[in-house]
Amino acid sequence: MGYSNYTIVTLGSHSALQILKGAKDEGFKTAVVVTPDRIPLYKSYDNFIDQILEIQSWQDFPKIEKDLGSDFIIIPHGSFVAYLGMDENKKMKVPYFGNKKVLDWEEDRKMQRRWMEESGVKVPRRFRKGDKTDRPVIVKSYGAAGGKGYFTARNQKELDEKLKTFSEERFMVQEYVIGVPVYFHFFYSPLTHKVELMSVDKRYETNVDSLGRIPAKNQRGLNIEPSFEVVANIPMAVRESMVAVAVEMAQRVIKTSQKLIGPKGLFGPFCLETIVTSSEEIYVIEISARIVAGTNCFINGSPYTYLLYDEPMSTGRRIAREIKNAIKQNKLKEVLD
Amino acid sequence: MGYSNYTIVTLGSHSALQILKGAKDEGFKTAVVVTPDRIPLYKSYDNFIDQILEIQSWQDFPKIEKDLGSDFIIIPHGSFVAYLGMDENKKMKVPYFGNKKVLDWEEDRKMQRRWMEESGVKVPRRFRKGDKTDRPVIVKSYGAAGGKGYFTARNQKELDEKLKTFSEERFMVQEYVIGVPVYFHFFYSPLTHKVELMSVDKRYETNVDSLGRIPAKNQRGLNIEPSFEVVANIPMAVRESMVAVAVEMAQRVIKTSQKLIGPKGLFGPFCLETIVTSSEEIYVIEISARIVAGTNCFINGSPYTYLLYDEPMSTGRRIAREIKNAIKQNKLKEVLD
Amino acid sequence: MGYSNYTIVTLGSHSALQILKGAKDEGFKTAVVVTPDRIPLYKSYDNFIDQILEIQSWQDFPKIEKDLGSDFIIIPHGSFVAYLGMDENKKMKVPYFGNKKVLDWEEDRKMQRRWMEESGVKVPRRFRKGDKTDRPVIVKSYGAAGGKGYFTARNQKELDEKLKTFSEERFMVQEYVIGVPVYFHFFYSPLTHKVELMSVDKRYETNVDSLGRIPAKNQRGLNIEPSFEVVANIPMAVRESMVAVAVEMAQRVIKTSQKLIGPKGLFGPFCLETIVTSSEEIYVIEISARIVAGTNCFINGSPYTYLLYDEPMSTGRRIAREIKNAIKQNKLKEVLD
Repeated sequence: MGYSNYTIVTLGSHSALQILKGAKDEGFKTAVVVTPDRIPLYKSYDNFIDQILEIQSWQDFPKIEKDLGSDFIIIPHGSFVAYLGMDENKKMKVPYFGNKKVLDWEEDRKMQRRWMEESGVKVPRRFRKGDKTDRPVIVKSYGAAGGKGYFTARNQKELDEKLKTFSEERFMVQEYVIGVPVYFHFFYSPLTHKVELMSVDKRYETNVDSLGRIPAKNQRGLNIEPSFEVVANIPMAVRESMVAVAVEMAQRVIKTSQKLIGPKGLFGPFCLETIVTSSEEIYVIEISARIVAGTNCFINGSPYTYLLYDEPMSTGRRIAREIKNAIKQNKLKEVLD
Repeated sequence: MGYSNYTIVTLGSHSALQILKGAKDEGFKTAVVVTPDRIPLYKSYDNFIDQILEIQSWQDFPKIEKDLGSDFIIIPHGSFVAYLGMDENKKMKVPYFGNKKVLDWEEDRKMQRRWMEESGVKVPRRFRKGDKTDRPVIVKSYGAAGGKGYFTARNQKELDEKLKTFSEERFMVQEYVIGVPVYFHFFYSPLTHKVELMSVDKRYETNVDSLGRIPAKNQRGLNIEPSFEVVANIPMAVRESMVAVAVEMAQRVIKTSQKLIGPKGLFGPFCLETIVTSSEEIYVIEISARIVAGTNCFINGSPYTYLLYDEPMSTGRRIAREIKNAIKQNKLKEVLD
Repeated sequence: MGYSNYTIVTLGSHSALQILKGAKDEGFKTAVVVTPDRIPLYKSYDNFIDQILEIQSWQDFPKIEKDLGSDFIIIPHGSFVAYLGMDENKKMKVPYFGNKKVLDWEEDRKMQRRWMEESGVKVPRRFRKGDKTDRPVIVKSYGAAGGKGYFTARNQKELDEKLKTFSEERFMVQEYVIGVPVYFHFFYSPLTHKVELMSVDKRYETNVDSLGRIPAKNQRGLNIEPSFEVVANIPMAVRESMVAVAVEMAQRVIKTSQKLIGPKGLFGPFCLETIVTSSEEIYVIEISARIVAGTNCFINGSPYTYLLYDEPMSTGRRIAREIKNAIKQNKLKEVLD
């Protein structure tokens, strides 16, 4: 079956526009699964979205799944697990771009930490229950989406106080590394066995990114607790010496995933969320094992993808390109789960 | 008359380069009206600027107006009212892209507020003369250009003190919403009746954006009052869930303008200036009823315009495209005033 | 000899990917000189890098130099002097794009300051040894690379204290101008005698750009000394009125260089590093007389280069275009040293 007979489908959120535009640019049919409130948005992009599949709520996804034939390929994105839930993701029968075995390793913070440590990347010190903290910490709830459920504490006393009113049951206490956040977006191709740097961004978070615009003396009166809800992403280009280091880290993360998770390991788009310190050390804070929203800055290509492709290549389009190449090489099963 | 016989003209400032490059890309003749000091800049872009019309000062615009034939179409931008004044704008005889009736609704803060409220968008609380303020406020003078004439006050006492030395006569006292600023650029086509999201930016303002780089303890010694002069704009991409909400708000703003201002309402490029809070509420701070400078980040296209156009589409070029389409459909009068 | 017989070569760092991609796009052969640790990175871009020349350390560059024939043209970048040292740069026999006489004027802060002052650009006040400082200052060591060796002091007392533990011998004490940093990237063509604005960025520095995300009250506990290591660059577009002023300043800097440094003066890519104050004055902090890393945001073109070129034009590609034009016009010697 030629690739033009396949339909690329995703949930209407996160990076769906990027994914479906990329799929259309590569010659696929496209469909979006969407709740009623968002239909107008996706309808207005009928130049690249062929089919709109309405569900009443994300929980209804299983109802529509059976209508998706074997010529549909679903592309997961950063809101997938959050919307459908872990179990629904795993049970899904529609051909799925990626390796579902990665889901557990991404979701469970202890497993993810083991993955990072065995990859030999620098990670912030972690404090276990009962440990005394000797430095500023950040507390993250498990499975937090979009920066919700994060807070910082300067010392043990502040930590104890804030934990009293923290409702999350499962959370992690981590060293707060002083430095600037940098998000590296990669694509690992199981066909070429290469890691490609796709783009780099930083997040624009509310309200924490408003703090710097309020004079210190005025902050006293306002008494703002910093929160980290992601509003947008800002494109960046990093020092070339850092590109070399980041790509090498990404390669080790892929290699370790093949050892820990199974022969296929992690493939397709992923992101290393890092903090760069003033001694130019790169700490990895998190591995996102799928397309991240920061790639939306680069729907029309990035400085880095332009090095590899002489046309506007987004991460969404790169996914479709990989599927197309797999079909052409009769290796489609290798990129699906 | 074919569209290639028309000349697109604007004032040499703000987004003139973008507007005229876009006009040339769409096949129009181009001209710029400019003061002597700026002639070298616009002359150096003779690859897309056909004609330079010199005036001694912006006030001299009426002198040159009579030389502009009916085959000239003027494109207003964010510096237009500031440079020519409100009355001059309204009196202008040259065909003008846009609806001049919008000018009053944009300039008068009370009318603009009514427009926003009737559109059902969230707006910061406003305090009238004599009202006691119970939260931090921002004070804006009417018709402020480029962030001049803004200041913040934490409470009533600070407000009273600062107002003593504030020279502006007409100003507005508004709740200071804690959150991050986001500027959404739209284009509403009266030909297709569609709102298109063109791009998103945040401003880079001096000196307020330098504060965050000065440690709190050092700020004490420096005693800097934050000011908000716009120096530059930084491109962004927002969460896709926010795109849906923003486009819907923009549609309501257009619909309301047709009710309040008259059947044509607002059309062409406009911007919603917003603050996004940590509960992910989007407050609209201001409607800019014309092309804004933030679109200059996207002269070579944006992630969002790439979804709709397979070529680099700036807001400036989109204006020229609309005029071209109107000419082809024999509807030019519908987009001019 | 046709231009396709020439090989563009540079050191594997800084903006090498941009430079070599641009050279390939213009039809040149390409080579990179690189230390062993970075070979994998440059190998992965074999779509535009033809030849990899390995050296054990940057100091070994002279060993490989003799292998580079007269059909090689070396492009210096921002890490060149830092890696090879001043003397090695000057002694280099391989044809070198640029004017080596500029090196002294760039490296010596006193000479650079004279260059800026004679260009009639605004510069921060400078304090000489023994001068009493009457305002906040920034202290920069000579030949500092990537923001290392900078610190700020609020007053004379803090300055005296910090100097006690400052190990650099040669440094400069400068007024700390309150405002936002803006980096303007230019290209001056000795063939067309025109200055082109290529792009604009701001730096993303660790740890100083993390300060603004830490509430003032928490900063007390952390006691962070701001440092300025450049991690990345963020693209921007500036107000059009500022473009006019910046291009004019750049033209004066070029003209003055021809007077001070010799008839060829500065040509090719350069950067004016500025601070813009709330009274919209543009202070020039530094002249970088070569391609800067901020141009890496624009490998796929910038809003400004799109005004001049209807294809993605990076600064790296612009260099190759200039060499190609020089070859075609039989003026290659004019752009080499």
